[in-house]
Amino acid sequence: METTVTRRRGRPPKQAGGYSETREALLRAGMVILTQKGFSATGLDEILRSISVPKGSFYHYFESKEGYGLELIDTYAAYFARKLDRFFLDETRRPLVRIRDFVQDAKAGMARFNYTRGCLIGNLGQEMGALPEDFRERLSKVFADWEARLEKCLLAAKALGEIPASVDCARLAKFFWTGWEGAVLRAKLECNATSLDLFAESFFSLVSRAR
Amino acid sequence: METTVTRRRGRPPKQAGGYSETREALLRAGMVILTQKGFSATGLDEILRSISVPKGSFYHYFESKEGYGLELIDTYAAYFARKLDRFFLDETRRPLVRIRDFVQDAKAGMARFNYTRGCLIGNLGQEMGALPEDFRERLSKVFADWEARLEKCLLAAKALGEIPASVDCARLAKFFWTGWEGAVLRAKLECNATSLDLFAESFFSLVSRAR
Repeated sequence: METTVTRRRGRPPKQAGGYSETREALLRAGMVILTQKGFSATGLDEILRSISVPKGSFYHYFESKEGYGLELIDTYAAYFARKLDRFFLDETRRPLVRIRDFVQDAKAGMARFNYTRGCLIGNLGQEMGALPEDFRERLSKVFADWEARLEKCLLAAKALGEIPASVDCARLAKFFWTGWEGAVLRAKLECNATSLDLFAESFFSLVSRAR
Repeated sequence: METTVTRRRGRPPKQAGGYSETREALLRAGMVILTQKGFSATGLDEILRSISVPKGSFYHYFESKEGYGLELIDTYAAYFARKLDRFFLDETRRPLVRIRDFVQDAKAGMARFNYTRGCLIGNLGQEMGALPEDFRERLSKVFADWEARLEKCLLAAKALGEIPASVDCARLAKFFWTGWEGAVLRAKLECNATSLDLFAESFFSLVSRAR
């Protein structure tokens, strides 16, 4: 899922130096805009303008808007998988605390951008009715990946006796990501973290009392 | 929230007869398309074409695409409020069963259109980053209305001892609609009802074991 271009920290240069730098800058700019507005409402011109890449040069870097969108899904998925690993595999924390840590980080991330940026996968999933059909499997696979990562963390919680042995961790993980996307939607709409807190607390309540 | 035009049952005439009939047909066609694709990805031409209204005559009926969008929110909200009342106020059923009835009806509704139609409010809420700012309050109010209607049903359940007296019904209602929108998103993406069932079952599990 990783892109092969070299990653640089910080803001991309106004006039990107080489082909791969510009390509990477286009992917980063696309991720920012798509977490805000989704795919359909985003024009390529807007993305190009945001990083001062000449209008019309897009097809030098990507074969189509659709191909670019698919690559943005992969890039975002890789970024998010690294984030999830950072939290869910943190052996210094108890498994359920790791999930709480992720929630706190997500809340801080949304607050930092005044709740204008949500989830790229949720945005595109919501607008699937307007997207090319091959986006569907790609988006579904990302959710499946997040579910698998969370399930492992929940299994670790079960092994430590943090949650009852009878809990179906795969099912619980699917419930989490399903409801979480709804909570992110509401957080963006209402410009606050109420829905994120409400969903997370309900989730932990369900986990701790699961039979 | 009700529109003042006369409502007719059935398919609108191919050549709508009068001003109010055409206006109503445009609202109905818009609701169908927006539950599928949201606002940004929908062109006015597409809506006009779907009911054979001449291209270019849109502004005869609505002052702007934005004004039309706001009216679509109100029309959908009125339609959905009637639906919720039909279920949540059904005195022949126990309160928690009424909520289950709503879930079953929603599942059947999504299946009937092969999971292509979701929730207009969820779609527009998700794409709020690309919508005019005055959509925000309008959409938030619709969620608040749904929460209030569900809260009443949950309070009825509490009065009958179906759920513990200590439950915060307003909070539980907000949790329901937050997670439900996530479940509808996933149902559209995955073209099946798995997420709707999963969320509903988790909700009822939470309700029955709430402290």
